[in-house]
Amino acid sequence: MSTLVIRFDAPFIVFFGDIADEVYAKTGLGLVQWRRADCLGQWRLPGCGMDAGVADVTLAGAKAQGARTLIVGSAAVGGGIPEQWVAALCEAAAAGLDIVAGLHIRLATLPGLAAAAERGAARLIDVRVPPPGLPVGTGRKRSGLRLLTVGTDCACGKKYTALALERELRARGRAADFRATGQTGIMIAGQGLPIDAVVSDFVTGAAEVLSPDNAPDHWDLIEGQGAIFHPGYLQVTVGLLVGSQPDAFVVCHDPLRQTIAGWPDFPLPTIGAVIGRTIGIGHLTNRAIRCVGVALNTSKIPAGERGAVLAHYADETGLPVVDPLIDGVGPIVDRMLAVFPT
Amino acid sequence: MSTLVIRFDAPFIVFFGDIADEVYAKTGLGLVQWRRADCLGQWRLPGCGMDAGVADVTLAGAKAQGARTLIVGSAAVGGGIPEQWVAALCEAAAAGLDIVAGLHIRLATLPGLAAAAERGAARLIDVRVPPPGLPVGTGRKRSGLRLLTVGTDCACGKKYTALALERELRARGRAADFRATGQTGIMIAGQGLPIDAVVSDFVTGAAEVLSPDNAPDHWDLIEGQGAIFHPGYLQVTVGLLVGSQPDAFVVCHDPLRQTIAGWPDFPLPTIGAVIGRTIGIGHLTNRAIRCVGVALNTSKIPAGERGAVLAHYADETGLPVVDPLIDGVGPIVDRMLAVFPT
Repeated sequence: MSTLVIRFDAPFIVFFGDIADEVYAKTGLGLVQWRRADCLGQWRLPGCGMDAGVADVTLAGAKAQGARTLIVGSAAVGGGIPEQWVAALCEAAAAGLDIVAGLHIRLATLPGLAAAAERGAARLIDVRVPPPGLPVGTGRKRSGLRLLTVGTDCACGKKYTALALERELRARGRAADFRATGQTGIMIAGQGLPIDAVVSDFVTGAAEVLSPDNAPDHWDLIEGQGAIFHPGYLQVTVGLLVGSQPDAFVVCHDPLRQTIAGWPDFPLPTIGAVIGRTIGIGHLTNRAIRCVGVALNTSKIPAGERGAVLAHYADETGLPVVDPLIDGVGPIVDRMLAVFPT
Repeated sequence: MSTLVIRFDAPFIVFFGDIADEVYAKTGLGLVQWRRADCLGQWRLPGCGMDAGVADVTLAGAKAQGARTLIVGSAAVGGGIPEQWVAALCEAAAAGLDIVAGLHIRLATLPGLAAAAERGAARLIDVRVPPPGLPVGTGRKRSGLRLLTVGTDCACGKKYTALALERELRARGRAADFRATGQTGIMIAGQGLPIDAVVSDFVTGAAEVLSPDNAPDHWDLIEGQGAIFHPGYLQVTVGLLVGSQPDAFVVCHDPLRQTIAGWPDFPLPTIGAVIGRTIGIGHLTNRAIRCVGVALNTSKIPAGERGAVLAHYADETGLPVVDPLIDGVGPIVDRMLAVFPT
């Protein structure tokens, strides 16, 4: 893959500093969940109250096991980086571990860290910072198959659904790659581009770089961002859609949400409206774009009512409808492989 | 207006360095054309072959006349900044003139210029660089009236049309402001935001900042960017549209163009398609959005055929159709004021 994409090496250790609990540790927990095989363990400072359920490692121990990378798995309360964290990161960088973080401040601005990284020939990788040199989108049709997850809103399962589709396709022996577009996704995948941090002119180009030409039967599962009727973020969604040129998309939806989260004056669009608009805009770079499924978040729906909710949306859309966390994404993959036979 | 918008003071002088001809002087020529009253003259170095048709000034003379700002009105061949230009800019900054430029490199990186500006208490203003701290778009309805120029493609008259509408409305005694979204427009207006350089997440928010609440009968004439069916830049267009929440829009079109300029595999959309898509997306933040006119570039159409071309598009759209450079924009302003009476 292009040097225009952020990437880091495995195996890695996850650093939790001395945080008290899980509240700020979503990144680290996601890493342990999705990349258990590449995670040598957690490094916790004295007083840390968080436990991701993997082996505790020391820096020396991790190095001895071949660790290549340290990933900062938590934010510190208040947003700053405590001194003892910086000291630990400097020690790791000086020992030659690449440091990966999605902090609001750049790693190189932490006192002593750039110098420590130079001593250890380590890289400092900020996953919120797009690489320089991204191109403008060309609209050229690329080989291979692509699926984009979209949603009726932000934060309704687009990352999880794309990851679950990758896992299911691979389990069936298909070539498939999750393509990360947000910081947590990039950490889980070990590569990607933070699409919402890209300068506006280059969003379509970034999406093209992220999902290059591939074998005809290879699937890219592209993590969606924003939402196509979102008054703040639709431009990110639209650029990612046109640059991704997806053959297929899945709509992610929270059936209990009435309005756009954080924008109470904007009603949530219907799934049908999202399908129509996504096809209307996506058509520009892929005339065959189609919806292949709906992913619902039913976690807050009583178990006895789930079946009826799923059936309601299946009737309405004529598509496979699942809660990926409960039902898996098998029916959606069945549809993908039926519609796009190899 | 917010400090989140780039702005600089008049009167100003235009600096042409020692360029040989007009080819790289589009910015300076636009300034002289649109802001003649605020332009004290041109500063040309020995050997300069360019003449914008205004008085030649020296730095001392400009200061004596009250100049506040020096605007770099041309690019140098090859993209770099020659040493003698830098020396002149340093001299001006040390004398207290704010320096404005839309260069590919930042002014502060030119040798000695930051120090000279500090000595002269001058500002260095890069119009390609958005101010920090732009917000996310809220979608909140703002007071006042807004018109956005859109197009079937890039480079088809959106800036010129918005400027011409401002001029015509003011000539009729209406309160109106051109809102610049690109570097040349910002220089002409003395304020604005380079919307295509804004980080993707903040494009709608930048458009909101650019066009704040205003008097009920005040018109903002917002310079469009990109095009809504453009495979590289549509995300800029879409974010600007939704953040601008225009009441009205004008479609700019070059009747001789067959494909998107620079993207020969993408046919130019019809004006009708652009109107439909612009209303479809703009509806999210302004349900009353409507098209009020078409601005054609007929410069390459033989004079004897112009009338038929204008009539063709007027029949097709039922809208006033003009070439702003030849016909002015009076008929479009008539329509605006009829549709939105005060």
